[in-house]
Parts: sequence; C-alpha cells; structure tokens
Amino acid sequence: MQEQQIKQWGNFEASWEGPKEGNPFIDVSFKAIFKNANREVEVNGFYAGEGQYTIRFMPDQIGEWYFQTESNIETLNGLNGEFQCIEAGEDNHGPVIVSGKTHFSYSDGKPFYPFGTTAYVWNYQNEEVQEQTYETLKNGPFNKIRMCVFPKHYDYNLQEPLMFPFVGSLEEGFDFSRFDTRFFDKLEEQIARLEELNIEVDLILFHPYDRWGFKNMGKEADRCYLSYIIARLASFRNIWWSLANEYDLIESRSMAEWDDLFKLIQKEDPSQHLRSIHNWHRPDNRNNTHWYDHCKPWVTHASIQHPDTSLCLELLALYEKPVIYDECRYEGNLNHGWGNLTAERMVQCFWEGVCQGGYVTHGETFMNPNDVIWWSHGGKLYGESPDRIAFLRTIIEEGPVVERLAPFNFEWTVFAGKVGEEYLLAYFGDSRPSSKVLPFSENEKYKIDIVDTWEMTITHLEGEFAGGSTISLPSKPYSALRARKI
Amino acid sequence: MQEQQIKQWGNFEASWEGPKEGNPFIDVSFKAIFKNANREVEVNGFYAGEGQYTIRFMPDQIGEWYFQTESNIETLNGLNGEFQCIEAGEDNHGPVIVSGKTHFSYSDGKPFYPFGTTAYVWNYQNEEVQEQTYETLKNGPFNKIRMCVFPKHYDYNLQEPLMFPFVGSLEEGFDFSRFDTRFFDKLEEQIARLEELNIEVDLILFHPYDRWGFKNMGKEADRCYLSYIIARLASFRNIWWSLANEYDLIESRSMAEWDDLFKLIQKEDPSQHLRSIHNWHRPDNRNNTHWYDHCKPWVTHASIQHPDTSLCLELLALYEKPVIYDECRYEGNLNHGWGNLTAERMVQCFWEGVCQGGYVTHGETFMNPNDVIWWSHGGKLYGESPDRIAFLRTIIEEGPVVERLAPFNFEWTVFAGKVGEEYLLAYFGDSRPSSKVLPFSENEKYKIDIVDTWEMTITHLEGEFAGGSTISLPSKPYSALRARKI
Repeated sequence: MQEQQIKQWGNFEASWEGPKEGNPFIDVSFKAIFKNANREVEVNGFYAGEGQYTIRFMPDQIGEWYFQTESNIETLNGLNGEFQCIEAGEDNHGPVIVSGKTHFSYSDGKPFYPFGTTAYVWNYQNEEVQEQTYETLKNGPFNKIRMCVFPKHYDYNLQEPLMFPFVGSLEEGFDFSRFDTRFFDKLEEQIARLEELNIEVDLILFHPYDRWGFKNMGKEADRCYLSYIIARLASFRNIWWSLANEYDLIESRSMAEWDDLFKLIQKEDPSQHLRSIHNWHRPDNRNNTHWYDHCKPWVTHASIQHPDTSLCLELLALYEKPVIYDECRYEGNLNHGWGNLTAERMVQCFWEGVCQGGYVTHGETFMNPNDVIWWSHGGKLYGESPDRIAFLRTIIEEGPVVERLAPFNFEWTVFAGKVGEEYLLAYFGDSRPSSKVLPFSENEKYKIDIVDTWEMTITHLEGEFAGGSTISLPSKPYSALRARKI
Repeated sequence: MQEQQIKQWGNFEASWEGPKEGNPFIDVSFKAIFKNANREVEVNGFYAGEGQYTIRFMPDQIGEWYFQTESNIETLNGLNGEFQCIEAGEDNHGPVIVSGKTHFSYSDGKPFYPFGTTAYVWNYQNEEVQEQTYETLKNGPFNKIRMCVFPKHYDYNLQEPLMFPFVGSLEEGFDFSRFDTRFFDKLEEQIARLEELNIEVDLILFHPYDRWGFKNMGKEADRCYLSYIIARLASFRNIWWSLANEYDLIESRSMAEWDDLFKLIQKEDPSQHLRSIHNWHRPDNRNNTHWYDHCKPWVTHASIQHPDTSLCLELLALYEKPVIYDECRYEGNLNHGWGNLTAERMVQCFWEGVCQGGYVTHGETFMNPNDVIWWSHGGKLYGESPDRIAFLRTIIEEGPVVERLAPFNFEWTVFAGKVGEEYLLAYFGDSRPSSKVLPFSENEKYKIDIVDTWEMTITHLEGEFAGGSTISLPSKPYSALRARKI
C-alpha cells in the first residue's frame, strides 16, 4: 500500500469506531502524539458523533510523520499510523503568523496584510444569505472575517437559531457537556469555504450578547468547550482565535480567568494559531490601564476597539506587537453611535491606521428592511468604503516586502509610514497641504505619486525628485503621497 | 467743581509730571491705593514718557472712590483725588470672568461664549492690513482674538518690525529696562478699537518665535516687563492674560519660573483678568503629565492646543475649569501640518468642543501671494468655516442661560451637551444615524430641530415629542439635534 501523502499545512484526519454509550464527550479521553524527526506534537482528538472518534492535524514540516493514539478506551489506545508530508500546493501559504515585530506573514514568508471585515453571526443566517455572504467576500477586498461560534442576542438579532453548539434549546436549557456535532459539521464547512476564498477566520470564542447562557457556562464547561473547538478546528490553516469580543462586558469572568483560558488555548493548539482578545470600553483617561494587557506572552497581536486610529502609533510602541483596529465603528446609518460612520471616515480610519504600520477592520451597518445587516448577518454590502479599501490594499501590497512600514513623524496631522530611505506613504486626511518637503536624504532620488484616496486615482509626477525637494500637493482632502526610491 | 464720574468697568486715568532724567522706568516707584467703602486696591502706575507718570484703574463697584499715590519721588508721593463710579453704559458688561465652574460670563452676569480667532501679530502689520483686520473682525463671528505683545520670527514672518516694546534694534540690541512708549501707545489704541468691536484680547505675553532676545530676557527683565504691561493695560476691560503661547518651546524657563510669573500677574493685576497658558506639545501617552497643570489656582481656564476635540470631556473633568481649545489646527493649505485643515474639520472641531461644554478657537492659514495670512498677520478671511462658526454661535447664544451645557454621554461617537431635562444639543459629526431615542423623561415634551451644521439650516419637526420617542434623523454627516422642553 502506498504511504498516505499530506500537503504541508494541509489537513490530516483519521477516525475510528468507539463507544456511543454514556457521554462520549466527557467520558472518553483520546489524543495522539505526532512525531517528525526529533519533534513530538500532542494533538487532542474529539468525538464526532455516531460512535466516531477523530484526530485532525495540520503538519507544518515536510517529511515523514508517525502518530500513536492514547485513550482510556482500550480499542482507541495505541492506534498508530504514518504519512508523508509533501510540499504545499501553490495556493497554500500556511497559517498567518507574526512577522518581524508588528506585521504578519503567511508561514511560508509571503507577507499578509490584514484587511478584515466583520459579520458576527453570518453563519447562523439562512442558506440564501450565507451564499450571498460568500459571493460578497469573493468579490470584495477582505481577507479576514470576524465571526462568532455562539449566536448573538442583540438589536436586529432576535431570531432564534436553528442549531446551537450544544444539545438543547432556549426553553429546555442546554447540556454544556454535549456538543451538537451537526452544528460543528456546518461550521467546518463554512470555515473550509472561507479557506477556499483565502479568507482568514478570526473566530470569536466568547461574547457578551447572549440569552442562552453561553457567556456564563462555568469554568469547567468553558474549558471543555475550548478544548473541543481546538481539537476540531486547529487543523484549519485559516483559523485565528479571538478569545472574546468585548470581553469587558462579560462581567462574570475575572482577568485571571481570561488569562487561564488564553493559556489553555496556547497549550492545546498544536498549530499555534494567532491569539487575541477584543475590548469594548475605552481606556480611562487614556492611560490604557483599563484594557487587557496585550503585552502578555500568550497574546500574539492587539485586537483593539477604539474610534481614534491616531492612537495606533502609541499602541504599537506600547505592545510591540501587531495592532489591528478590529473595530473603529462601522460605515452605515444605524441608530447606534458605533454604526453610522460615513464612508469617508471609514476609509480615513483605514489609511490612518495602515500608514502608521497598523491595520484596520471594516464593518457595515446600513438599516435594511429585512434587518439583514452586514455587520452581523453578512449578505450584501451597500457602502462606498469597500472599493476604497480595495484600492488601499493594492497600494499596500505593492509596497516594500522585506522590511515593512514603520511609523514616521511627518508632522502631527499626517499619518505616515516609511521604510528606511526606500519608501514613504503619507496620508493627509483632513489636512490639505499645498506642499511638503520630501523627508529623505538629498543624495537619493525618488519617483513620486499623488494619491487621491477617495477618487482612487494615482497621479505620477514627471521627473525624479531628490530628498529635501519641495513637492507640490493638490490642497485637497483625502490625499496621500507615495515616494519610492529609484 | 463737579466730581469726576467714571462708569463701572470704565477707565479712570490720571497723570502727573515727574522726573525725566536717569531711567524713570526703573528709578521711580509709583503706585496708588484706591479705596471704596472698606475696600483697598493697590494699583501700580507707569512712566508714560515725556516726564508723564500715569495711574490707570478700572473701578468695578458703583460708588465713591478715593485714591492716594505713593512714590519714592516726593512730588509724586501723596497725590490724591476721588471720583464717583456710576452705572456702566449699555454696551459695557465688564470684563469676562469664569461663570459656574466651566463657563464664562461678563462681570454683570451676561453669558459670554468665547468664539475666538487667532492673528498673532496683526498689530505689527502695515496700517492697510490693520484696517482690513478691524473690518474682518467687525463683520465676522469672533468675540476674542489671540495676539502677541512681542513680534514673531517664523516662516512667513521674517519682516523686521518698525517698532518694538523696548528701545533698541536687532542690530544694536535692546535695553530691556527701557520701554518704547510709542509702541505701547499704539498697542493701547489697537486694544481700544477691539474693545469697541466687543472683542476680547487674549494677550500673549511670551512666545518662543523670536530672533530679538525677548524670550530670554532674564528673570528681572521678565518681571519688569510684566509689571509695566499690567500697569498700562489692566484697566482695559477686554484684556485676558495668556502668559505664553507654546510655553513648552521656551526651554530656558522652568515650570517654577512660569508659576512665579503667574503669581506676579495674579498679585499685580487689580482687575483680576482671566489668566491662562498655552502648550505646544501633546501629553505623552495621553496621561496629561506633560502639560502645565491647569489645576493650579492662578490659572482661570485651560488654554489647550490639541487636534482632538473629543478630549474636551476628559479635560473638563480633570481641570474643573473652562476649557478652550485655543488651537486645534487651522483652516487652510499651508505646508505645515497644523495649517491645512479642511473647513469641514474646523467646523467639526467647534461643534465637538462646544457640544461637550467646552470652547474652540479659529485660525486660518491659506497660502497668499503677499504672505498675508490671517493666523499671523490678520487681513482678510478666505475660508468657509467662519460663516458656519457664526451659525453655531447663534445657536449657542439662543441656548439656556441660567444653567449651561454639561457634557452628556449620548453614545460614544456623539458630542452632546444637556441642561437637565430642559435642553439637548447633540452633534453627530462623521456619524449619520437614521434615528435616535430622545434621552429625556417620558413625562416631558420637547420641540425638536434638525440642524445641518454645514448647510446652516435648521429644520423644525412638526409636533411635540415626549422623552423616549424615537426621532428620525437624516442619515447625513454634520447633522445635529436640538431638543428644547416645551
């Protein structure tokens, strides 16, 4: 028999029959040790329903892998096998990791610039809306989506879901020790379809908007839930763990408990996907004491909610990790203060954040006669910002690769990033200077583009410009300047 | 002989002959004690040139006043006189004072809402430009101007002045112990003309942009200069003392020295005009430690430079004094980052600040072929913000008088102020909600206006609205909502 071949960052999966009686989710322990050269990786298996016990694993090293299971059930103990991990396919660059100090790349080194969006519970909507969501994502500028495992209870989100992660119902209550495997099968199908679209899934594990009791399941159930999620989903290369959305609105859990949940994920995830936690409140008196301390070692990047993207510079300096403004308010016209931003301001937030070397996430909240609002339900986008975000993404992806944008102080109202003497991207936003002096050495020459970030035009200036030259600018809001060394 | 009559908050002045020889500015001490009922006020006199010694005083109480001079020169010692202080004229409401905790009024109780502008050295420009400045101020929305005693050395400000506060020249140096009385005569004429236009003079006593040595005169000369200024100008009812513009760029003076200069003004000004100091830097890490501590008792109000008017709420809570954003950048298209704001953003800063119960100051910096730029030189205004500022001023002056706007948390992206259950002014800025719930008790009824702050229209909604009603809004940026109890 030919040895099984698994592509690097692909998904190895094997299942065996085991007991159905009792509560297999709790009663049966089941894991495998995967070995490659002198390295061992422990991978938890999970009960997939119908008496099936499954191990999933994403190999990150090319070469021979061997595994052996461990279980408290004799027939599941000591099972073993092997496979050969071969080169990844062209479209698979592996999971996203932190690159340098404050940026991201895929595992193979290809730069990744997060241009995310938010559709918290699109996965709970009807099939027609789900298909619209895939279609919108396929044609849009976004490469990351924030979405929840749990359903959402909130304005415009009052319909009862058809399926839940747990067995039970609102009326009869839920058994937090029994997972509804149909729900997870569906979630995996959704994540796989997003993977095909090259969209990273920033999966929100807890959140406060709840009428079913999922935010207060108790410590044991919380841990059991996280372990199950990790066992099932960690082998998807496009998974990011967002421990919680607006964690600070879940008042029942202490900061130490959040730490413990982070540590559980850090310990159990064999693929070490990105980990973050997202706030609701703004820091008191802007001294940052209120926020979760994103300096903690298990946090891979700061996932910030704040309307002021000009803080990006400070946050990068404070955390020395990538900073993503995962919520800076949404384009739309909702009654809620966070949901009625102009497209102009949404685009401005993106440019402000990105030019400082940070990242920004989109959301859309236009009132809709059917209450299908992108921010929560997915569906269609109606706003004017996505095209401008696509335009920005193109500019950023055309930028320097080896070293990436570092914030540069080009006077206080300008959001600018530089790469040494190589590259400058400066965004003027509400400012409209008639000229600026090129902030480079006079020994170097540059080609200059004037960017209209709203009209989405790039005007190349004739000629070469030495550092220190005065560059005429159009005195128009929403302009940017790009300088590239010749 | 009929007793002299001086109107309340008018200007009593008397002069006597004295010695011309030596240095009368230094050699001669000369002051008067003014008495009214059981109150005594010490008022320094000054040498006005040509052997004239002058005492000026602004009486603040109606009734009989008596004075007697004290001097180290016999002929100037023990001079006395009296006058009757009578009711102020209709147009004289007295100097502006702090009202309540965070607002201003004239001394007679009439509310004063500062809508200031900035023209740092308009007083140094040629007569034609000065006349244009008066004309612009007369027709504009501004009731306060920030201006300097000293000339300014900076980009677009390189012409040598014709006169200086001190005797001397750039080439030959200045004698900081001898004032040029012609300069002060002219300055007083300028302040008096502004008084006629009902414009408060926020007079900047020190600033860093200097090639003549005025920012580093030494402690003794600094104190002598302040005493002379106070003796000459404190009797103008429209004077505010701005101890320094961008004090933190004058590195030679310690914080304790600034304190001492403040204390000198507090001690010597018989009329206790408003006192403030203005920063350049932004606080480090937003913890405010960097700024001058505006809580100090000699500071009457916080004169802030910061581009983010959303901080107003915090600053009001921190200082418990009126907060004026005396610089939040300027409308224009200058090369400098602080000088190329869109009119839209300038107007937005005003609404954001004012709706939170603070105040904001205007400035304009359009490139000009003759380098006559309002921010520094005065002259004409070209921008689109002044008309909108006038519109806002009308709305604010129509608002409640007895109690004034206190910041109200009407969701985080809305800048709103309330007066109890009486009045609401909420500015939506970049947000454009389609509706909001009226944040008042349902037992009260309100009339509602929708304000387009950019188009300067007020749309009155038909009918009466109870607290708790949902108010439809136009989903348009730069909208505001006004609710007034019926």
